Amino acid sequence: MKQIEGGITAVQGVQAAGICAGIKKAETKDIALIYTDTPATAAGVFTTNSVTAAPVLVCRKHLSDATAQAIIVNSGNANACTGDLGMTNAHRMAAATADQLDIEEEEVLVASTGVIGQQLQMQVIENGIQMAAKTLSSEGGDDAAEAIMTTDTFPKSTAIEIEVGGKTVRIGGIAKGAGMIAPNMATMLSFLTTDVNINSDTLQSALTRVVDNTYNLLTVDTDRSTNDTVLILATGNAENTEIANASGRDYEAFCDGLMFVCTELVKMLARDGEGATKLVEVVIKQAKNKEDAEKTARAVAESPLVKTAVFANDANWGRIMMAIGKSGAAFDPYQVDVLLGDYPLVKNGMDSGYDEEKATQLFDNDTVRITIDLRAGDAEITMWTCDYSYDYIRINADYRT
Amino acid sequence: MKQIEGGITAVQGVQAAGICAGIKKAETKDIALIYTDTPATAAGVFTTNSVTAAPVLVCRKHLSDATAQAIIVNSGNANACTGDLGMTNAHRMAAATADQLDIEEEEVLVASTGVIGQQLQMQVIENGIQMAAKTLSSEGGDDAAEAIMTTDTFPKSTAIEIEVGGKTVRIGGIAKGAGMIAPNMATMLSFLTTDVNINSDTLQSALTRVVDNTYNLLTVDTDRSTNDTVLILATGNAENTEIANASGRDYEAFCDGLMFVCTELVKMLARDGEGATKLVEVVIKQAKNKEDAEKTARAVAESPLVKTAVFANDANWGRIMMAIGKSGAAFDPYQVDVLLGDYPLVKNGMDSGYDEEKATQLFDNDTVRITIDLRAGDAEITMWTCDYSYDYIRINADYRT
Repeated sequence: MKQIEGGITAVQGVQAAGICAGIKKAETKDIALIYTDTPATAAGVFTTNSVTAAPVLVCRKHLSDATAQAIIVNSGNANACTGDLGMTNAHRMAAATADQLDIEEEEVLVASTGVIGQQLQMQVIENGIQMAAKTLSSEGGDDAAEAIMTTDTFPKSTAIEIEVGGKTVRIGGIAKGAGMIAPNMATMLSFLTTDVNINSDTLQSALTRVVDNTYNLLTVDTDRSTNDTVLILATGNAENTEIANASGRDYEAFCDGLMFVCTELVKMLARDGEGATKLVEVVIKQAKNKEDAEKTARAVAESPLVKTAVFANDANWGRIMMAIGKSGAAFDPYQVDVLLGDYPLVKNGMDSGYDEEKATQLFDNDTVRITIDLRAGDAEITMWTCDYSYDYIRINADYRT
Repeated sequence: MKQIEGGITAVQGVQAAGICAGIKKAETKDIALIYTDTPATAAGVFTTNSVTAAPVLVCRKHLSDATAQAIIVNSGNANACTGDLGMTNAHRMAAATADQLDIEEEEVLVASTGVIGQQLQMQVIENGIQMAAKTLSSEGGDDAAEAIMTTDTFPKSTAIEIEVGGKTVRIGGIAKGAGMIAPNMATMLSFLTTDVNINSDTLQSALTRVVDNTYNLLTVDTDRSTNDTVLILATGNAENTEIANASGRDYEAFCDGLMFVCTELVKMLARDGEGATKLVEVVIKQAKNKEDAEKTARAVAESPLVKTAVFANDANWGRIMMAIGKSGAAFDPYQVDVLLGDYPLVKNGMDSGYDEEKATQLFDNDTVRITIDLRAGDAEITMWTCDYSYDYIRINADYRT
């Protein structure tokens, strides 16, 4: 496996664009377009929020044949809670894109992110789509990564090269996140491209499996968006023998690659959580079962008291024990170890006699790993989050102004 | 029903004290003692956190005969995650109190609140207990309310007079909260006194019912403490005919009174949530059933994005719709109304065309009521919380320093 430059356009046959249409107040890019030279096999995973945005409904419909050739995305307006007009506008985004690219409307997937409850300015959007189509390029991956951002502070993009069935396969991805991120669709938007040759059911299986172990284990603030979407387009250009089943060496090799790309993106999303000063990895070991592992990880990763202590570089392990205890997982409190990196804070449920200054130093890092050993079984899990800082409040108290 | 002065010592036969023993760094009261002249009928409700503090285990044991004559409380140290020595020390607190008051150790209930994972300094505690016993007084309710505070900014105390079976009955209560407050034992500590004549099973039924509809519907930060405790002592001095069953007019009258006292305390707790600038009441109407009503209320009341918007006086109703949607409750998004006070922000799931300035003014209040009408059934519920401000982060990032 090799990391390469170019993000989603590192994959041959993929073009992208990111332009400033004027949806947002600031002069920043706000429309992204992704296009494959030939129709691609497509799969998607969407928000479980029952207040579902119009573009998500359009995507689900257009994915019914499991192919697509373009993804049109706007930031600045989520097109959620917008009723019939919102649905009409989401369809119009697909139609305008299809028109520019001379493809069928059903081959266009749509995504929106931003403020909820306002109608799209369709004149601005349609002009933007025209502009984006004109600037499509095989070097446009970074522009697209930028154009999907809302409160993100940096674009999130990665690509790799792997071998599948003796052929070189590339996988690229971009994502945007920041706030309203919680399990069961963690990131708001992520778009993946690959040239692997795979059938549609198998692509969907691979995507679902990887999303469950990456985006769904990311939590920034427990809130779950109305628009969360992960889409993947597979062109087949790599000319490997088609992966036709969700098993076997080629399938596993592809899943490993996809897992790597999505893990990289998820770490970037956590690190760039609203107001985050560090990436926090919560590792659960020896849980009774997978469900308990996840419950425990989530209770710790979502605890505001733990997250503010991490922000303050404060080894307040009592808050970690409190969070483990409220999770509902089965364990004996006086069997639990808690480690910061490899340094034990808690031994058998009590103070390990750690050095306060050393713990503070270990917390004062870009990446903090908290390992919790429950000694209750053999299940383990890693979950990603960030700390809670003053800036989380500032960003979310000011977002609309 | 009449509100009266005096808190827990408004009830005849109850004495209390609150003194500064030196557990906390600052010169503030940190030991509270509550004492009834005669053995009282007693009941309790405790944290569901599986990491349970030593004093909670002692309370459960000492309540096995459903009587008690004293409650000893310290703030500044939670005596949680403290192992065998912690258990020994919790028992020593009961023993030292019993010794001072010349009663049995089993008649003393124990509660602790503060930092987790440190051992109590028993010399300081035992000196404090001696001091508290010496200053017991029928005017000591306010001192006790003060002595149980941790990051609270004001003491929480209330008392009422009601009529039960033709007799005047008094109910008083104190509470402390601030952080680590979430459903299934919302407040960390609350102590209630009454002179009603009631048998122990019925007292426990009344307490459980009222706690479910008050403390368990309070959420500040989703975190649930290791020490949460609500205790009630009933002296029987009011000389009403004993309430012997959890039904009938006298039982309902007592429950109404207890509900009033606990609701008042819960509102004070929410208003004084860490960093709170306002009390937020989330009212759910026409939910499909009680479970859905509670799920919806909780999703809204616990959403950091909703809470930061409330702090900013920002009518960002999209976040409220998002939170309703993630709750898992059954409803049609395009049937939902959201009101701020009596002013509609959302009609049928979409912008009501409200006036932004008026909404901002309505948010800019000590108390904000958000009503969500789901039009899916006839269940309703009220939940209490507060907004999320910069100070939540400041308080929790600095707590141990």
